[in-house]
Amino acid sequence: MLSSCCRSALRLSASSQLAVQTLRASSCRHLDTAAGARGSYSSKGSRRAAAAAGLVIAAAAAAGAAGQASICEAPQKQDSDLPTIRRADVQQHKTKETGIWVIRGDGVYDITEFIASHPGGASKIMMAAGGNLEPFWRLYAQHEKQEAHDILAGLRIGTLPAEDVVVHKVSAADDPFGKDPERHPALIVNSAKPYNAEPPPDLLIDAGFTTPNEIHYKRNHLPVPEIDPETYRLQVEVEGKQCVRLSLEDLKMKFPHYRVAATIQCAGNRREEMMAVKPVRGLSWGLGAISTTEWTGVRLRDVLAYAGFDLNEDGPLQHVQFEGLDRDMTQAYGGSIPVHKAVDPHGDVLLAFEMNGEPLPRDHGFPVRVVVPGVVGARSVKWLGKIIASTGESQNHWQQKDYKGFSPSVDWDTVDFSTAPAIQELPVVSAICAPTAHALVSAHEDTIPVRGYAWSGGGRGIVRVDVTADGGATWHTAQLAPPEGQPLHRAWAWTLWEAEVPVPEGARGKEGAKLEIACKATDASYNTQPELAAPIWNLRGVLTNHWHRVPLVVSDEE
Amino acid sequence: MLSSCCRSALRLSASSQLAVQTLRASSCRHLDTAAGARGSYSSKGSRRAAAAAGLVIAAAAAAGAAGQASICEAPQKQDSDLPTIRRADVQQHKTKETGIWVIRGDGVYDITEFIASHPGGASKIMMAAGGNLEPFWRLYAQHEKQEAHDILAGLRIGTLPAEDVVVHKVSAADDPFGKDPERHPALIVNSAKPYNAEPPPDLLIDAGFTTPNEIHYKRNHLPVPEIDPETYRLQVEVEGKQCVRLSLEDLKMKFPHYRVAATIQCAGNRREEMMAVKPVRGLSWGLGAISTTEWTGVRLRDVLAYAGFDLNEDGPLQHVQFEGLDRDMTQAYGGSIPVHKAVDPHGDVLLAFEMNGEPLPRDHGFPVRVVVPGVVGARSVKWLGKIIASTGESQNHWQQKDYKGFSPSVDWDTVDFSTAPAIQELPVVSAICAPTAHALVSAHEDTIPVRGYAWSGGGRGIVRVDVTADGGATWHTAQLAPPEGQPLHRAWAWTLWEAEVPVPEGARGKEGAKLEIACKATDASYNTQPELAAPIWNLRGVLTNHWHRVPLVVSDEE
Repeated sequence: MLSSCCRSALRLSASSQLAVQTLRASSCRHLDTAAGARGSYSSKGSRRAAAAAGLVIAAAAAAGAAGQASICEAPQKQDSDLPTIRRADVQQHKTKETGIWVIRGDGVYDITEFIASHPGGASKIMMAAGGNLEPFWRLYAQHEKQEAHDILAGLRIGTLPAEDVVVHKVSAADDPFGKDPERHPALIVNSAKPYNAEPPPDLLIDAGFTTPNEIHYKRNHLPVPEIDPETYRLQVEVEGKQCVRLSLEDLKMKFPHYRVAATIQCAGNRREEMMAVKPVRGLSWGLGAISTTEWTGVRLRDVLAYAGFDLNEDGPLQHVQFEGLDRDMTQAYGGSIPVHKAVDPHGDVLLAFEMNGEPLPRDHGFPVRVVVPGVVGARSVKWLGKIIASTGESQNHWQQKDYKGFSPSVDWDTVDFSTAPAIQELPVVSAICAPTAHALVSAHEDTIPVRGYAWSGGGRGIVRVDVTADGGATWHTAQLAPPEGQPLHRAWAWTLWEAEVPVPEGARGKEGAKLEIACKATDASYNTQPELAAPIWNLRGVLTNHWHRVPLVVSDEE
Repeated sequence: MLSSCCRSALRLSASSQLAVQTLRASSCRHLDTAAGARGSYSSKGSRRAAAAAGLVIAAAAAAGAAGQASICEAPQKQDSDLPTIRRADVQQHKTKETGIWVIRGDGVYDITEFIASHPGGASKIMMAAGGNLEPFWRLYAQHEKQEAHDILAGLRIGTLPAEDVVVHKVSAADDPFGKDPERHPALIVNSAKPYNAEPPPDLLIDAGFTTPNEIHYKRNHLPVPEIDPETYRLQVEVEGKQCVRLSLEDLKMKFPHYRVAATIQCAGNRREEMMAVKPVRGLSWGLGAISTTEWTGVRLRDVLAYAGFDLNEDGPLQHVQFEGLDRDMTQAYGGSIPVHKAVDPHGDVLLAFEMNGEPLPRDHGFPVRVVVPGVVGARSVKWLGKIIASTGESQNHWQQKDYKGFSPSVDWDTVDFSTAPAIQELPVVSAICAPTAHALVSAHEDTIPVRGYAWSGGGRGIVRVDVTADGGATWHTAQLAPPEGQPLHRAWAWTLWEAEVPVPEGARGKEGAKLEIACKATDASYNTQPELAAPIWNLRGVLTNHWHRVPLVVSDEE
């Protein structure tokens, strides 16, 4: 799919991944905010424009392959008068004190002075400090403009030696995760093996309605399987009927194709906020375990009908099970959904083979995955190997012993997983993506521009998002960007929103004053989010959907 | 429908209605609880048995007509040695100090000493103090047993004069509400004209799964129309097609009948709790503006298809409007639902003509009403006159300018009703029906038996109810009685529940100690209730679904 040039770019990102991840692990979240806040709030006008643009750049950002190709084809400036600088040196230049250097191709650039005037805000450009720009430029299509190239050219201070330009992936034949694919260095890694990672909040929201595949959150339970699309076969079994085997070509040729924009969210999204109440067992997800994609595939109901399932039958086969091809020594991943969802002509359950117009990336289930819109991500089984229409639900570990909700008073000594239903539809949720935690609010501004996402399970669209900066004494109704063409009862994709929230009287203009902004969404059933995490705390840390709160600090700095 | 004997009984209730309503208005809520608590909690064993029975007596209580007939036919004891007592005298005997008297037929009974041993609890029997027993006995089928008759016979102290036995209804030819039907005196009247009333919480929960028609909450927007079932015609219009007119007989003969158990809830249920935060415009409903019925009727989708609507068409007709025959000088009641709900074969929308096996009572839409399961009561239009499948939604006042939710910061000066969607599906709710507010908890008991209901819109069944007696520090998972035969995605009827909640350490055995119990439910989408009313406050006081809290007092009395 990628040209050899682009493969080089991807290899490059493997090295910068190390650098940026190290940075992130130590202080990146802090840098995102404290350092980035001035850029974010000192110039309200441009910030507003950027926010507005953020809602419409999705298509450009999602173009993906085309964007990569043109980045790759742009010739790098060669300046033979400039010194050679080693990658290791660049990696030492990540702060204002040392100077902030970045790499593009074989060029090394000092962006220290440029940061304050970066149109996308200082926090964005700081993600690349000490490493490569390309992985980030691919996400922000506006860097394709000549203007960006010209600005960068003026900041060049050196050239990487050839051996630092291409960095080969470390081989790991003995590691079950050794054949996992490359990932984007911007992702915040919650677990490396199996790989679980999420985009930073501001990157997620800047990407707009459709999340680029590279930064779509990754939630793998097992190593990523290597599947040959030529020999791939999907087994479809309707209990009591003959079994059907379909090749990838069969799937694509025998059934009509559908495109569905759908948000997928991990049950553990925002778990870190629940962990702050009391420890839970689970990965410490921030608010980025949610992403939105234009999926292309065939309808599950069509495939079931082809395999002999009677769609009009309120019969004994009440579940549709999915088995993944990802497995370890003891088990494969799997799960099931109720048959009413599986066969609902308005339920839009897909067997997807494209993600934002590209073949599924390996991390997202290549060559075929299930996409169950409106339902917890855990049921959208990747690397789909088998479908079974059955009387009972899946007996898989992740259906029976995980992804269920319990009372805050149930602990690991008392839990009985059989007493709760497997999570299917998720509750209403929202989060503030920008500003990020501990960002600075300019003492010279009266309002704070706030942006975020809101979404609810079951296709229930978002009807309102309320934002407060004074603990709920006053609420500001956000401006919504609902998913186009998706009515309130079939809104599979999130609603992005923005609000201009007044700085509370007590904090306005007061250097060092602390404040907190919070949001809550209401969905088409007028369900809304609970205030606090403690009453919804549960031992697995799933279903975190209380108000999202972001602490901010007023700063006098220009 | 009723025998002439039963009509007399109903007339009787008109007089006792006055008496009991006066009582209720002054102190009945208090009596329900403070006086009733000892009966409720001093004998845990029998109380538990009663609670268990409460979950299964629905069928018997719902028998209704049969029960009335046998009450009416039972000969009253005539004891010529006893004195004549006037109704006005009886009405003066409602307290322990004066003695507590009640009437049945022409008999007057002193139940003062009996109250403490009343199997149903003291609060129940106190509702009839100073008035007639019959309206209450009709609700509790166990009074049909000879034992109840024998006990009462032993308490007789006098005989009503003939002129006090039958009280004629006051005629009111000039009153638009003058032809409204008789109502059950147990109902708490929030508005007399139009009539809006709810059952007391403990009566509601004691009635069990199916609420008897007489105490089903009544929510009328206009006078109750008088409709002749012989000349009644339902007009069905599919925009662009010919109009169809159906008689009641047509409806019953042309289409298959369906029975659906569905809970209907007013958008304003529990509004009084929201009013406690800040005034709203609306009736002060307690927690009883919700009831459950076995509805019988024909499917809306079948009638629409008969009128020429293409059920498989994702066409331009996206709404189904309903117009009621209830009207005043300026308008009729009406509303609409989205077409996807109207035609969904699993949506179970009925044109109902029977309520718990009886023809619809006049207050509930005789002869035909809509029942939209899982949706706010406002769309289940009563006295149905017209159905229109249309491109746009109903322009009726109650669809456009009412029954919508807004942010707590929107007031009557700033509200723009066009910015919010009409409420359709309701959010998850639960409430504690017993004990009632300010009830006494025995200082000699370690636990409190708690009972209530939980329900959610959209057919989302209840998966858990949590109850706390210590402000949420510990939660007790209630035992659920989900609606039989209704899966979690098609649970139109409520889930009744009960829990045995430990008295908190600090209050246990301490005379006068105050405590508060609270409940919250979780539905099949794992949506749960917000903690507080303030963040969901809205100017119309709809959608109150925060945790339900009940204050209690520990008492040393036996």
